[in-house]
Amino acid sequence: MIAEYGFSAPAELGMTLEEVQTPCLVIDMSALEHNLKTMADQVVGMGVRLRVHAKAHKSVDIAKLQQVIGGACGICCQKVSEAEVFVRAGFRDVLITNEVRQPSKIDRMARLALGGARVLCCVDDLENVAELSEGASKYGVQIECLVEFDCGGGRCGVKSEDEVLKIAIAIEAARNLKFAGIQAYQGKAQHIQVYSERRDAIAISTAQVAEVKVHLETAGLSCDIVGGGGTGTFAFEGGSGVYNELQCGTYALMDADYNRVESAEGVCQPMFKNALFILTSVMSKTKRGIAVCDAGLKTHAVDSGLPKMFERTDVEFIHCADEHGAINDPQDKLCINDQLLLVPGHCDPTCNLHDFFVCMRDHKVEALWPISARGKLL
Amino acid sequence: MIAEYGFSAPAELGMTLEEVQTPCLVIDMSALEHNLKTMADQVVGMGVRLRVHAKAHKSVDIAKLQQVIGGACGICCQKVSEAEVFVRAGFRDVLITNEVRQPSKIDRMARLALGGARVLCCVDDLENVAELSEGASKYGVQIECLVEFDCGGGRCGVKSEDEVLKIAIAIEAARNLKFAGIQAYQGKAQHIQVYSERRDAIAISTAQVAEVKVHLETAGLSCDIVGGGGTGTFAFEGGSGVYNELQCGTYALMDADYNRVESAEGVCQPMFKNALFILTSVMSKTKRGIAVCDAGLKTHAVDSGLPKMFERTDVEFIHCADEHGAINDPQDKLCINDQLLLVPGHCDPTCNLHDFFVCMRDHKVEALWPISARGKLL
Repeated sequence: MIAEYGFSAPAELGMTLEEVQTPCLVIDMSALEHNLKTMADQVVGMGVRLRVHAKAHKSVDIAKLQQVIGGACGICCQKVSEAEVFVRAGFRDVLITNEVRQPSKIDRMARLALGGARVLCCVDDLENVAELSEGASKYGVQIECLVEFDCGGGRCGVKSEDEVLKIAIAIEAARNLKFAGIQAYQGKAQHIQVYSERRDAIAISTAQVAEVKVHLETAGLSCDIVGGGGTGTFAFEGGSGVYNELQCGTYALMDADYNRVESAEGVCQPMFKNALFILTSVMSKTKRGIAVCDAGLKTHAVDSGLPKMFERTDVEFIHCADEHGAINDPQDKLCINDQLLLVPGHCDPTCNLHDFFVCMRDHKVEALWPISARGKLL
Repeated sequence: MIAEYGFSAPAELGMTLEEVQTPCLVIDMSALEHNLKTMADQVVGMGVRLRVHAKAHKSVDIAKLQQVIGGACGICCQKVSEAEVFVRAGFRDVLITNEVRQPSKIDRMARLALGGARVLCCVDDLENVAELSEGASKYGVQIECLVEFDCGGGRCGVKSEDEVLKIAIAIEAARNLKFAGIQAYQGKAQHIQVYSERRDAIAISTAQVAEVKVHLETAGLSCDIVGGGGTGTFAFEGGSGVYNELQCGTYALMDADYNRVESAEGVCQPMFKNALFILTSVMSKTKRGIAVCDAGLKTHAVDSGLPKMFERTDVEFIHCADEHGAINDPQDKLCINDQLLLVPGHCDPTCNLHDFFVCMRDHKVEALWPISARGKLL
């Protein structure tokens, strides 16, 4: 059955960009390395750990680079099946930043620890503690658990320090489980464009997390990990003295939505460069002012807006169909097979659509990286 | 490298729905068969051919059923790499309803015809005729070409009958090409909800296509194929006396967006049943009135709106994050691991996110079908 999938790669090593088949995802390797080193410097400066979120890029190769030059102490995944990909590829410290509830998935997660990897997950329900304990005991492994505290994201997680404590005590008492700390990711704050509003949102959530931490410590439970933070807010959590592990993901590749997040000076995200692009070609030009390219909904996710043209203002991506993109081309500059570099609206679900990253350096294809955990939903 | 992908299937044959891992795509086999037979009856009644669009489901197994019980004369694909999957699986009559412009893709397309398959594509530019002729000649194969006429879609295709004629004459004169007719798909009209407005839009486009056809015939060029029509409008094109091949795709599986398209009586698409579902589970329930499920942007496309709850009005899917969905649950009925069936907003890009269809009949998994052409972008 695998043969049926017949991955057809868009490029071969050594090709120039013009030779690459489109549409595909392109990584600017220099920009990627710049981003990884910049974040590594940031976390060293703040004295916190960086547990990179692999759900952003889903790539074993990028995660390895994040460990080698990017200062990562471990990785985050969002799904058990994602974690399986990374553990299989040799990663030894993997946090699933999510609740694991289906019995079959708890079983899969427990088996991940059989080879000696440190496996962590989140818990927001007392009943889940017994389920996880049973799953870990079956294989004689240990699963470390963070209690998820909802610090404003409004999704999973409990809302009060008492609930956190109750679950933490249960974890500590359960066979084959270990209480490892607090998961507190303020997802909603990441994309607040105005710096002061973003800072204020995290100030509120961090104060809550600090109280939870003290509440646990008062009860004799210390937090190995107080984890959270993303590309939009990591400097606030990292500098708070409350969090000790940041979970940034998108900073490595960036996207148009994070480009809109402003610094204190009102500059759009100056710290990280766009390293991820959709390479598309013009494939129809029959009308004045409009060109049609080959990048549509199968090529990029539009939940956070349309892709942006990279370093061009004379043309604009204005509409997205299943397999086509419409480009506003008021001066009719575009010709058939002209290539365009688009910055995707949202990194994570865009990477999830592709089988490969075409990695470019000095105008040549340096590597072809599989998007290792694409489609890992379970 | 393939091993790294390690497809993890959400189900095994014989499982009940409750045993299936979530999130995943589920097909109701009875509903699928109903839809295929219904469309087969429709096209017989109208005396036209049905060339099913495989881009909707991307499945070799569904396309085979469409030939066996669904009255399909052949299939449509949108990309050369999609066509490769279907030709490799034994399909012998494949129309790429798109322009093929990159030299490497023309080469791939020409090679598709080497095994004897009938390969067709669309053309909307004179220069493309020479490119295609050269590509087909290199392998000594024939590529059949439809001239794409923009009958209101506003995307690819030429706008005037003279332009169509000019390209048709060039195709007819070109080595190893054959003029096969007109491609005229009015994509914009498919989703017009009100019946009369949809009918009127197609009346306009069909009148234009009729003129183009006469113009070609006057010049001595007959159209083997006048192709177009989709799930929203096929009855209009099929009954027009102008079109002779319909290119419907979504009717086989259906989605929430096409559910909103009304019949003459104002009934929402009564002809086809929902055969495609996202199966999701509740994985967090820490707040009153809200449940969190495991279906997010990685599970379904939201370009045409959020998924709809299937045959339930007491709960509603209200927000979509990368890996989570928020469910409005005002009566707090939902419990952890409760399963929900969602009708995806948009079939095509949702199927493109998954590796498998879990096919259910009589509450058991009857088959596990790979989504054969998922991710075929080139």
